[in-house]
Amino acid sequence: MSNKIRLGILGGGGDSLIGVLHRVASAMFDKYQLVGGVFNPKFEDNVGFAEQIGLPTDRVYKDFDTLIEEELKLPADKRMQVVSILTPNFLHYPMAKKLLENGFNVICEKPMTTTFEEAKDLHATLQKSKTVFAVTYTYTGYPMVRQMRELVKSGVIGKIQKIDAQYYQGWINPIIHDKEKRQTTWRLNPEKSGISCCIGDIGTHAFDMLEYVSGCTIESILADLNYLYDDNKMDIDGTVLLRASGNVKGLICASQIATGEENSFVVKVYGDKAGLKWEQENPNYLYLMEEGKPLQVLKPGHSYNSELSLDGTKLPPGHPEGIFDSMGNIYKGVAKAINKEKYDHGEFPTMIDGVRGMSFIEKAVESHKNGNVWTSIDKI
Amino acid sequence: MSNKIRLGILGGGGDSLIGVLHRVASAMFDKYQLVGGVFNPKFEDNVGFAEQIGLPTDRVYKDFDTLIEEELKLPADKRMQVVSILTPNFLHYPMAKKLLENGFNVICEKPMTTTFEEAKDLHATLQKSKTVFAVTYTYTGYPMVRQMRELVKSGVIGKIQKIDAQYYQGWINPIIHDKEKRQTTWRLNPEKSGISCCIGDIGTHAFDMLEYVSGCTIESILADLNYLYDDNKMDIDGTVLLRASGNVKGLICASQIATGEENSFVVKVYGDKAGLKWEQENPNYLYLMEEGKPLQVLKPGHSYNSELSLDGTKLPPGHPEGIFDSMGNIYKGVAKAINKEKYDHGEFPTMIDGVRGMSFIEKAVESHKNGNVWTSIDKI
Amino acid sequence: MSNKIRLGILGGGGDSLIGVLHRVASAMFDKYQLVGGVFNPKFEDNVGFAEQIGLPTDRVYKDFDTLIEEELKLPADKRMQVVSILTPNFLHYPMAKKLLENGFNVICEKPMTTTFEEAKDLHATLQKSKTVFAVTYTYTGYPMVRQMRELVKSGVIGKIQKIDAQYYQGWINPIIHDKEKRQTTWRLNPEKSGISCCIGDIGTHAFDMLEYVSGCTIESILADLNYLYDDNKMDIDGTVLLRASGNVKGLICASQIATGEENSFVVKVYGDKAGLKWEQENPNYLYLMEEGKPLQVLKPGHSYNSELSLDGTKLPPGHPEGIFDSMGNIYKGVAKAINKEKYDHGEFPTMIDGVRGMSFIEKAVESHKNGNVWTSIDKI
Amino acid sequence: MSNKIRLGILGGGGDSLIGVLHRVASAMFDKYQLVGGVFNPKFEDNVGFAEQIGLPTDRVYKDFDTLIEEELKLPADKRMQVVSILTPNFLHYPMAKKLLENGFNVICEKPMTTTFEEAKDLHATLQKSKTVFAVTYTYTGYPMVRQMRELVKSGVIGKIQKIDAQYYQGWINPIIHDKEKRQTTWRLNPEKSGISCCIGDIGTHAFDMLEYVSGCTIESILADLNYLYDDNKMDIDGTVLLRASGNVKGLICASQIATGEENSFVVKVYGDKAGLKWEQENPNYLYLMEEGKPLQVLKPGHSYNSELSLDGTKLPPGHPEGIFDSMGNIYKGVAKAINKEKYDHGEFPTMIDGVRGMSFIEKAVESHKNGNVWTSIDKI
Repeated sequence: MSNKIRLGILGGGGDSLIGVLHRVASAMFDKYQLVGGVFNPKFEDNVGFAEQIGLPTDRVYKDFDTLIEEELKLPADKRMQVVSILTPNFLHYPMAKKLLENGFNVICEKPMTTTFEEAKDLHATLQKSKTVFAVTYTYTGYPMVRQMRELVKSGVIGKIQKIDAQYYQGWINPIIHDKEKRQTTWRLNPEKSGISCCIGDIGTHAFDMLEYVSGCTIESILADLNYLYDDNKMDIDGTVLLRASGNVKGLICASQIATGEENSFVVKVYGDKAGLKWEQENPNYLYLMEEGKPLQVLKPGHSYNSELSLDGTKLPPGHPEGIFDSMGNIYKGVAKAINKEKYDHGEFPTMIDGVRGMSFIEKAVESHKNGNVWTSIDKI
Repeated sequence: MSNKIRLGILGGGGDSLIGVLHRVASAMFDKYQLVGGVFNPKFEDNVGFAEQIGLPTDRVYKDFDTLIEEELKLPADKRMQVVSILTPNFLHYPMAKKLLENGFNVICEKPMTTTFEEAKDLHATLQKSKTVFAVTYTYTGYPMVRQMRELVKSGVIGKIQKIDAQYYQGWINPIIHDKEKRQTTWRLNPEKSGISCCIGDIGTHAFDMLEYVSGCTIESILADLNYLYDDNKMDIDGTVLLRASGNVKGLICASQIATGEENSFVVKVYGDKAGLKWEQENPNYLYLMEEGKPLQVLKPGHSYNSELSLDGTKLPPGHPEGIFDSMGNIYKGVAKAINKEKYDHGEFPTMIDGVRGMSFIEKAVESHKNGNVWTSIDKI
Repeated sequence: MSNKIRLGILGGGGDSLIGVLHRVASAMFDKYQLVGGVFNPKFEDNVGFAEQIGLPTDRVYKDFDTLIEEELKLPADKRMQVVSILTPNFLHYPMAKKLLENGFNVICEKPMTTTFEEAKDLHATLQKSKTVFAVTYTYTGYPMVRQMRELVKSGVIGKIQKIDAQYYQGWINPIIHDKEKRQTTWRLNPEKSGISCCIGDIGTHAFDMLEYVSGCTIESILADLNYLYDDNKMDIDGTVLLRASGNVKGLICASQIATGEENSFVVKVYGDKAGLKWEQENPNYLYLMEEGKPLQVLKPGHSYNSELSLDGTKLPPGHPEGIFDSMGNIYKGVAKAINKEKYDHGEFPTMIDGVRGMSFIEKAVESHKNGNVWTSIDKI
Repeated sequence: MSNKIRLGILGGGGDSLIGVLHRVASAMFDKYQLVGGVFNPKFEDNVGFAEQIGLPTDRVYKDFDTLIEEELKLPADKRMQVVSILTPNFLHYPMAKKLLENGFNVICEKPMTTTFEEAKDLHATLQKSKTVFAVTYTYTGYPMVRQMRELVKSGVIGKIQKIDAQYYQGWINPIIHDKEKRQTTWRLNPEKSGISCCIGDIGTHAFDMLEYVSGCTIESILADLNYLYDDNKMDIDGTVLLRASGNVKGLICASQIATGEENSFVVKVYGDKAGLKWEQENPNYLYLMEEGKPLQVLKPGHSYNSELSLDGTKLPPGHPEGIFDSMGNIYKGVAKAINKEKYDHGEFPTMIDGVRGMSFIEKAVESHKNGNVWTSIDKI
């Protein structure tokens, strides 16, 4: 009998990319065994998909409620220990809530919910349960992002004075200028996506990342969003000014109309002793800039890296890590928490990250709609 | 007798770096002959400096007024044709004004004046004279910046939808945290530097560059500046949100406390067909990003570049251009104007650029002081 | 019952990195189920390791012969379908031979054998069996390496005129200068590693890669190897001049004393129309250089890539692939071959690659020992 | 009266690029005054060119012999002090010889002569005169190349164990495949270019550079050259294996058929403690690679650089230097020598560099023609 953690998955069937990412990540460190789930809305697709990925179909359920019901009938040592939620955004909240209430650990895609209200309620639910909850802000799993966090904590860059994140994509460009397409794209439909497109989808990554690497708490924001067309109700670009704890200022610029950009997520933190820079598209390099010294380029797997960083590197220096490794590291951290092993707070993003992210989205839209004024992030 | 343009220089003596830059630039295309000037406040230093740079001392004057007086006594075909102003900022205005009034062409360092008021007055003076006036926003002289402008004009990127400039330096960091140093640095002294440090010094470069490459007119701004210490009266960091003609939004982020950065000036323009990106620290590369096509990297000297770009390249592809070449190209453009040869508007920054820059500085500070509100750039 | 391919593994236990690489790769595309193997020399370690990676221990065998014997007793639809050989080099040949003779498909680490003689014999064995055999020259699995191959085949670069590979590492540097260490390192022991260290370990990657991407057959070589110390019997650096089919010349430079280099494997192919360049440490970029045109940078996942390349990309553009993805792609290709699905010859390296690699090693050493003379690669 | 060094120039008229390079370089540090020369074969072109570059025509001579004759009539404090030779290669030797014999200092383009025999004779002539002689291996003037040399000398990389230079261009590609063009190109005509094209033109740069930065003396070589067509008598590509003093091995690979490459000159030196790498197309970066430490990227103008490097930087960090700056630094060094100021041996390439370069060319061709055998470089 395998001693791996028993994993269920909700969503991610068909040709879902996020499904591939989570399945591979769960296999990265020999820690999880996928045992079942509900991958597709239709039961026959669901079973077909399980066969396609080589999964026995006995625990492939017809819907979410059945999954809960049937799994609870199994003895504790057979039952799913953790369930990953990869469904459309509006389902995250009800599914996560019910899972938590029934004692399952949860790995949830971002955004965690569709409103801050839901997020707070979910947080209250979690506090009553004794489970592990992770939100997959994937990029915080990269070894060099972890190293960035550790270097900041170690004091190498001194007192932080500026935080800066850019997240530029161009994918919405062929859609936004086509009236028909922009009316039929779910990302641009508030009922399916919540109140924000660009800030909600990628701005939150930037927000979470800045807090993750800098250790700062962002306290208030001023947002200028861009909708381009009057009949478009969802932001597809925006700049957000930041004020954070410790008298730190900063900015997030996010765009989905930065034509030709792929996934250009760049994070910079400047202290009074040095600066640090990391780029998602070249994730194996961390730039340490010290006044009057040569630029230093740190890479994964070297002994000069922190334990937290090295824990996420599987091969020797010179063997580049990709996005799967990053998500794999988050799954590894969650496994440690489930197995009650020692782990570092930086190993996976928790519900607090999810809740703050929801507040960020709502406040960014509020700041913009009120005429680009400073607006406080809710405390939790 | 040489048929070169007779050049005088004000300032730039001693171990001034800006002096080196202008002298080399003036020699780049065999167009100018330095004939005299006032390089240093003290006359003996002035003569000593002339000897050091191998300049005959007969037209090295004791002060600016003497220069005007004596040069006017010379016959027109001996007299200085153009004078470069490299003195401290507060001297730009009175010197430029008197030079223009006396019929000299002028090349003036930026910022052109210390106030928008002065700038407008200088502009009125220029309109009465029949002279050439250039402000040395040096970076617009790079061949690949010129190519960026031409590609935008040619429609390759389609309708512009976002403009973005970052200008990050870290040099003020060792000063700003030292109370004594910050009180004795002229850049942080409003009497010597005007109302702004960071925005005035480098933010204006970003402002001018965005208008230069995009062809957009920036109409209003919202600024959040950073002073770090209460006893510091001058911004040393700031983010400025932009609204430009044609419903374009954008941002300028500028900093002198981005520790470890040297002169990281990055310019991006995104249209509905493609995006363009250029970085000052690697000035020989221009990135053209088209949705769904390979990234294209354009380099100087190739026949695929525009005439305007090629005019600024002296050697074949593969021979990197540096900052001297950029300033040299501006001097070359001014020479054409003085010699009444045909030239392109993109060959050197004119007084309009200088005036708009002054308005940008004043409005950025005003927007910040009024609580980060949208503020219009003055029209000229 | 899962319909995944049943995989056994030989070696790769303990803290073996190559074991991690193969296990993750096998999980990448939901195609394989690890069912058993012999991971460690000692049976108790072996079982312990299986438990650690969450593998049921019923098919963890005490040694290789037992594995063969016991697996053959199982019905065909339970029996391991493919076995991966990750053991020390000298075991590759006997294990692979016996597996092939008993009808198992094989995935074998490189170098395939320790001599060309063994390689030829293994090839003869394979021809009698009806099995699939792959040698894991991992780097050929990268999407952009595949694209490089396809672009060459498509004629984009015209007739090839130069091939060039550099493979520089620095890891042996701290060993080679320490007399004791160099006598106790297995890589430097001919009995364990065969006749070559640097050429055998990394030169063969370069050799295989050049033939893979260019489609050329390398026909003769002239090698200058470097041993640094008289008491060191194994090359740790070398340059190999190449002559290939179609009047093509080229070179391989390989080193393990290029101090500070990690795994700098760079491959260039120049035709009469264009050149192509790829770098292992930044594997998501393929550079297409055409005379007089902007440099083009191709990246994974775009529709401009070939089917072969896209088949190896799991996520959209901008999500960087790492080394696990590359090995995963090779496992995916092998799965297709085992499942008798349609596949492209470029999807995994076959035994021919393994055989040619062994000849390359032997001939490189021979060329060097004979005084740096041209020596022919054996034909197969 | 200016106290600048009086400079004459031979060649470089019309639209010669090398003429631009030398004129700008001579102006870089306010050290030279161009006073006359012979720029073009025809006297009227010669005068026209002088007017075009704004040079008084009184010392524009009708031919080289007249220049010598007339300049010698001038008093010593008016006479040209140094003459730059930018004429076709076969004129370098007779001009340089006569200049030296008549007491002029000389700056000579490379290759210094067309044969090693001429080079030796010129060397003997120099030893009898008391003049300064420089060969313009331009690239050694870059600040970061100088820093590379200084770091090697300082012991930072330890004992050198490998030297490696790549010099790849693609410009001859459109010529070499066109029978007519290859018969009418002077670079491919042995009568005009000597015995080698690729090795003579760019291989010598690599040879000089490796000796310059490493301090090693290259003692013997084995060359494999490439001519591509039977009716082409001049190499257009080649790889040269190196053996240098101190038991160092290495290689030079040079090509003019590396299609799409511009001027990709890359230099690497590996010691037993660290490695160093520099690339001409991004000349402001020097990479220091130490085993187990972050990669360090050194840039010009920082105080961590050596005096020799800083002497060649005119502006603060972040202001990129280009090819003109590099040549300017060589002119600056020559000026020091002429003015009998203190200077470092690394400031300009001397005749010894020129002589060794000629031997390298001859021996590379000899090694190739003798069947790729080791051949010694002549001693001087």
